[in-house]
Amino acid sequence: MSSPAEAAAPAITLADIEAAAGRIRGAVAETPCLQSYTLSKLTGARLWLKFENHQFTASFKERGALNKLLQLSDDERRRGVIAMSAGNHAQGVAYHAGRLGIPATIVMPKITPFVKVRHVRALGAKVVIEGDTLVEAASKAHALAAEHGYVFVHPYDDPAIMAGQGTLALEMLAQVPQLDDLVIPVGGGGLIAGMAVAAKALKPDLRIYGVESELYTAMYQQMHGLPVSVGGISIAEGISVRDIGGANLDLARRLVEDVLIAREADIERAIVALVEIEKTVCEGAGAAGLAALMADPERFRDRHVGIVLSGGNIDTRLLASVLMRGLVRDGRLARIIVMTDDAPGRLAKASGIIGATGVNIVEVVHQRLFTLASAKATEIEFVIEARDREHITELLQALAEGGLAARVEEPD
Amino acid sequence: MSSPAEAAAPAITLADIEAAAGRIRGAVAETPCLQSYTLSKLTGARLWLKFENHQFTASFKERGALNKLLQLSDDERRRGVIAMSAGNHAQGVAYHAGRLGIPATIVMPKITPFVKVRHVRALGAKVVIEGDTLVEAASKAHALAAEHGYVFVHPYDDPAIMAGQGTLALEMLAQVPQLDDLVIPVGGGGLIAGMAVAAKALKPDLRIYGVESELYTAMYQQMHGLPVSVGGISIAEGISVRDIGGANLDLARRLVEDVLIAREADIERAIVALVEIEKTVCEGAGAAGLAALMADPERFRDRHVGIVLSGGNIDTRLLASVLMRGLVRDGRLARIIVMTDDAPGRLAKASGIIGATGVNIVEVVHQRLFTLASAKATEIEFVIEARDREHITELLQALAEGGLAARVEEPD
Repeated sequence: MSSPAEAAAPAITLADIEAAAGRIRGAVAETPCLQSYTLSKLTGARLWLKFENHQFTASFKERGALNKLLQLSDDERRRGVIAMSAGNHAQGVAYHAGRLGIPATIVMPKITPFVKVRHVRALGAKVVIEGDTLVEAASKAHALAAEHGYVFVHPYDDPAIMAGQGTLALEMLAQVPQLDDLVIPVGGGGLIAGMAVAAKALKPDLRIYGVESELYTAMYQQMHGLPVSVGGISIAEGISVRDIGGANLDLARRLVEDVLIAREADIERAIVALVEIEKTVCEGAGAAGLAALMADPERFRDRHVGIVLSGGNIDTRLLASVLMRGLVRDGRLARIIVMTDDAPGRLAKASGIIGATGVNIVEVVHQRLFTLASAKATEIEFVIEARDREHITELLQALAEGGLAARVEEPD
Repeated sequence: MSSPAEAAAPAITLADIEAAAGRIRGAVAETPCLQSYTLSKLTGARLWLKFENHQFTASFKERGALNKLLQLSDDERRRGVIAMSAGNHAQGVAYHAGRLGIPATIVMPKITPFVKVRHVRALGAKVVIEGDTLVEAASKAHALAAEHGYVFVHPYDDPAIMAGQGTLALEMLAQVPQLDDLVIPVGGGGLIAGMAVAAKALKPDLRIYGVESELYTAMYQQMHGLPVSVGGISIAEGISVRDIGGANLDLARRLVEDVLIAREADIERAIVALVEIEKTVCEGAGAAGLAALMADPERFRDRHVGIVLSGGNIDTRLLASVLMRGLVRDGRLARIIVMTDDAPGRLAKASGIIGATGVNIVEVVHQRLFTLASAKATEIEFVIEARDREHITELLQALAEGGLAARVEEPD
């Protein structure tokens, strides 16, 4: 810890967070924080999951947004608020502004999926679609704020937002006082900064870890003195952020143990594990904490670890595709190519052997024109469903014994 | 209500269910029962969801199984138990028998997905795979019980099972005393019989509705004096049952308002709604109650309705496919066929118009050989992702203006 001479006063204190908790109580859900016995057994830690995906707009963002809105003057309320967000912050602001009768405008970049635009409109906000990037959309939002006198509600770089997000730590420690560690997704850093202030004030020995996706490790880079270099399309779009809030970074440097880096593939695996084991739906950012812990379980062995499932807003098409890719990874879904001479009855023969092995055929493409083999050869492509990888090996052997050469096409 | 002269004593009473609740307390989760504001707004009822999909084995079946196991004599415990089930009952029995150190054998029919076999084995039970049908598997289980002296644990036709399932109603009424109606999935009737006895004893005015899938309406048929005729592949396999338990039927006739019939397509819609709105994963049987209510909301308008999300064990491949079909139904995913003369550049032109309309191309098949049109024509098939149906209409119009005739292929 640094001495008063070295550092400026922190942006927020425990008292701010306790005041925020009092302010938002009853209007934001106290979500369950439950131990997962199966995930605990799998990882060797004692895992507690905080279901912020069960908030009304399915993310923790409501906490900060509501704490901010409740501190506006009557004049500010009358003028209204504006925010820039393609995601959960937009919904959090729109929902609580709507409830409180405060006019809200949300600027969303052009790439925003229409379903998100519709959700925000349904919550009663005015949506302005503008800008090819988040930066352009933000600049439009600031321009509109200046023009109309709207209060700009920043998603993370604001003490009222940070204090609101910090209430999550108060709640978790009240629900599970024995927590030893907290694992918290990091986008712009508002959530981890608020939670760290609250948790370290109440329980100084508690360890706080941030989690970033491998493509957006801005806080990790800043904390480790590396140049900031981020970018790419991450499944955890909610934490795909370049510019950490200054006060958030300052608090993280003082209070956070380290930032863990979750690989994209591990985040996908964590989304699938949460569906299969916990029967709960998380977006990429919401599953990032579990992903990081599953990749590095030794760090947490036998400790009570609280993981924030920060949000559940994942498009159903993306979720379906993540689930299917999980089956491919586990060897339960595979594409096999059977090469054979082009004699009649070969498709029937291959299908018969596949069926006899107990493998399910999902799709068939029987292709004669474009194989690289000779004109007398043919390739039959099967998408199949098997028990596991061993079952597929068993199938290839059965096909070989039946005189049919076959190979598995690995996914890219 | 019938007089004592007319009817035999009921199989179970409130006292049995209260005793069961005392017995299983602490070893079966007290799952949350939460109001869904969005689903309430959509349906006009005040909907409360009971998350039995959050039990350790993700279904209510543990309640009855554990109540049964805890009443075995020392000698019976030593000899062990046997059950026949391809699903949730198997997991409920295996899990609690394993916890209590009671040897358990589960007979599963040959068609059981391997993933379910593996789950039951992981819980410590011995699995015997036998029989092409449930009837054959059950007969094997009875034979093994006779041979080895195992206690047979029936999934629903047993007072101890019924009383255990009935604890769910005690719990819901303690959590939400203002409930007016309960909507309960019906397979063999153990759950609805147990819950009806408990709920009607505590709150005689409460209305109880059963829900069956349209392919398995055995209780509806029995209650309405119709011949029992069921069959087919339902997405709600957990309630695909032909033979209602005798005592369950008797109690249902006395205590249940009516049985609602959920269409298969509505059950799929309810699964999607629970994922999108509640961020929770339900199997078909678990979503059947919501499906029935959404199809007939008038019956429940302004009433406090408790819906039992009875289980969450849905295969990820099935879930992915239900989510994708939901997108097709909503017009967000569609297949369009563009007919054009076979001149170079037509694919580029069509793709360009699609892109300019803001529609996303998911898959393309460019097919020359097998069109029904003339040899100079070609068909290009696009799987596309749009905002909604109107967006697709907009696209067809843009293609027509560009000189490309196109049509939407409706799903079967």
